[in-house]
Amino acid sequence: MARFELVCSECGMVFSEDPDLLVCPKCSVRQEAGASLRGVLEVRLSDPLSRWPDGAVHEPGVLTRLLPLADPRVLAPLAVGGTPLLEAPRLRQELGMPKLWLKDDIRNPSGSTKDRASWLVAAKAREYGREVIATASTGNAASSLAAVCAASGQRAVVLVPATAPRAKLVQMMVCGARVIPVDGSYDDAFELCCEACRELGWYNRNTALNPYTIEGKKTLAVEIARGLAPEAPDVVIVPAGDGVITAGVAKGFADLVEWGLLQRAPRLVIVQPTGASALVDALERGADDVTAVRGAASVADSLVVESPRNARLALARVRASDGGGVAVSDDAILGAVARLARLTGVFAEPAAAASLAGLKAALDAGLVGRDERAVLLATGSGLKDLDAASRTVDFPQPVPPDLESVARVVEG
Amino acid sequence: MARFELVCSECGMVFSEDPDLLVCPKCSVRQEAGASLRGVLEVRLSDPLSRWPDGAVHEPGVLTRLLPLADPRVLAPLAVGGTPLLEAPRLRQELGMPKLWLKDDIRNPSGSTKDRASWLVAAKAREYGREVIATASTGNAASSLAAVCAASGQRAVVLVPATAPRAKLVQMMVCGARVIPVDGSYDDAFELCCEACRELGWYNRNTALNPYTIEGKKTLAVEIARGLAPEAPDVVIVPAGDGVITAGVAKGFADLVEWGLLQRAPRLVIVQPTGASALVDALERGADDVTAVRGAASVADSLVVESPRNARLALARVRASDGGGVAVSDDAILGAVARLARLTGVFAEPAAAASLAGLKAALDAGLVGRDERAVLLATGSGLKDLDAASRTVDFPQPVPPDLESVARVVEG
Repeated sequence: MARFELVCSECGMVFSEDPDLLVCPKCSVRQEAGASLRGVLEVRLSDPLSRWPDGAVHEPGVLTRLLPLADPRVLAPLAVGGTPLLEAPRLRQELGMPKLWLKDDIRNPSGSTKDRASWLVAAKAREYGREVIATASTGNAASSLAAVCAASGQRAVVLVPATAPRAKLVQMMVCGARVIPVDGSYDDAFELCCEACRELGWYNRNTALNPYTIEGKKTLAVEIARGLAPEAPDVVIVPAGDGVITAGVAKGFADLVEWGLLQRAPRLVIVQPTGASALVDALERGADDVTAVRGAASVADSLVVESPRNARLALARVRASDGGGVAVSDDAILGAVARLARLTGVFAEPAAAASLAGLKAALDAGLVGRDERAVLLATGSGLKDLDAASRTVDFPQPVPPDLESVARVVEG
Repeated sequence: MARFELVCSECGMVFSEDPDLLVCPKCSVRQEAGASLRGVLEVRLSDPLSRWPDGAVHEPGVLTRLLPLADPRVLAPLAVGGTPLLEAPRLRQELGMPKLWLKDDIRNPSGSTKDRASWLVAAKAREYGREVIATASTGNAASSLAAVCAASGQRAVVLVPATAPRAKLVQMMVCGARVIPVDGSYDDAFELCCEACRELGWYNRNTALNPYTIEGKKTLAVEIARGLAPEAPDVVIVPAGDGVITAGVAKGFADLVEWGLLQRAPRLVIVQPTGASALVDALERGADDVTAVRGAASVADSLVVESPRNARLALARVRASDGGGVAVSDDAILGAVARLARLTGVFAEPAAAASLAGLKAALDAGLVGRDERAVLLATGSGLKDLDAASRTVDFPQPVPPDLESVARVVEG
């Protein structure tokens, strides 16, 4: 018996596992280049978890009941997931939210949530005997794929906007990926990666297009639910670019509800920068799909997407959760980088701190209540974008090594 | 009954806990400014662990049996420790070492091993009602103290060489520390911090001088031993600056042997850059103390110490372990940054990758055997020093977004 099937999120058609199957062949007939994807597939496991394990949910024996994997030994030898769910008392106090948690997903191997997707995709590529894995990325997915492939001995080819932050570029190169900086946007890189994979036979990790990206990210929801059990979260605040973390988190909670491990799924509130807010705009318009934001731009580079590829699925899932969306300014995002670091010690990149900026906006808009059991996601490390963080601080002048100088600084 | 005592590592005198006690008053009478410390104290617990817990060793209930803490609730709400012990199969294969592990301690909250020390020191400061904690640092200890104090609401003052890598400076500033860049060396900052603490009443976290820095870092050894149990490690490779990670790791293994949880302590092999090799030089000379390396310099900024403050204790512990030391060139260190990343996906800063460079040197020198059960420590994130990592890669030229350009790059 098959261990899992793939289900089209639009027409509901069911498919057997197939290494060459990415999106639903029927729904994607109408796919236009550069537009959001049609017919994104989701995984349906045949033998899932039926009760919480005693140990952690990221242990190998548990992962085979959580993910579409026959044998966890195909996973690269990196410890992905199992990141802390912090109580963050000072942030709780500042926001007046006594039941707020911070899921510090920065503490994945490459410093971002993308590792959850890369890990599963690389494992499936290994099962399929595909040794070259390619992805388009704003930066974190590429760094992540590079790190995972370094650990497993697979080959990563990554296409990134030439403007990606230097830290991400250095990280992916040091980890041995073949890096192709593209003179163009992330959206250009996405299309180019699809073309290259078709022509050159590479396995395509492009987010949302590869169903295992969504499925990999669902472990984030599983860890949150496990961490709060027996209580259930009321609302989760998710920074959104392509909408794959959103859909992955929704998928995780939906699975747990179906498997009887969670009473109800939380609302999802997505956060985008005002300069790249296609999903939030669509939610406000009541539309099922996005209108591309040409020339999208923001300090939160990881969220700079003109046409979120997973828009149709993400919008459906946010609506089904009874959630919503907020757009936040770059100033609010930079302010949140500093506030999050100063109140929790978690140094997040702008895209990750956007969730805090979004939470404040959502509180003001009445989308989230202060007494709710809320979880804020931090998805990528502040060390990955120092230029942005530098804008939040004033570099002090060096002082001579004597006590008078120190005293002057401290009193000043 | 007291939960713990402090024991002088030189004269053996025993002291009760005292917030103002740092080093042994008797041995430190002969202390010279700028020299290695005399009379460094170690903790002796009265009610330690007597068997391995079922769960992880970094859980609160276990920590009170492992660390000199009455109540783990004084610890800042950050998840310190519990970092992965990786099998790293590709590194094993490259080195021909089938029983090699990589302790990826980069995955601490602020991205370095220093969190283990800062966490305990800040907790003791809280117990003592001392709200300002100061430290001298090459960068990581300061970032770490900043993050811990942000989480707990304590105040951090950090003195760092003005030349510290930008990533570390940005991180400590974003986390809200009062940063004082000093026109001088780390050694200058160390003395200045001592003076400022005495004059201004701050609690001094300076490494080795504060006994809880050594004690906090001992959890690294406890996690390694727990991870390999029931087997015991034969040798651990430790990058050394001041020698406090060295002494902390030695203390951890010594405690476990005393408590009956480990049959024998492993050998410790320390690694220093050739430009800052005071400890390794002393080992080679058979000396009990170091000769300062004036003008010490290396690409591994975290290891650039002229006069390692914990030299006397670290040298004694390395010798007692039947271990040794190796000095490695900056070229070897940079090569190790790239090799470690490409074979494991772990992107380490130069000081951390130095352990891999050192392992190769130790294999060549016959200090480590290929069949030994060996553990390599990775102590700080590569994202903290991009300039160094950039020297190991060639930035590729951006390409136009078309398939021909991609194909040319890949074939080229």
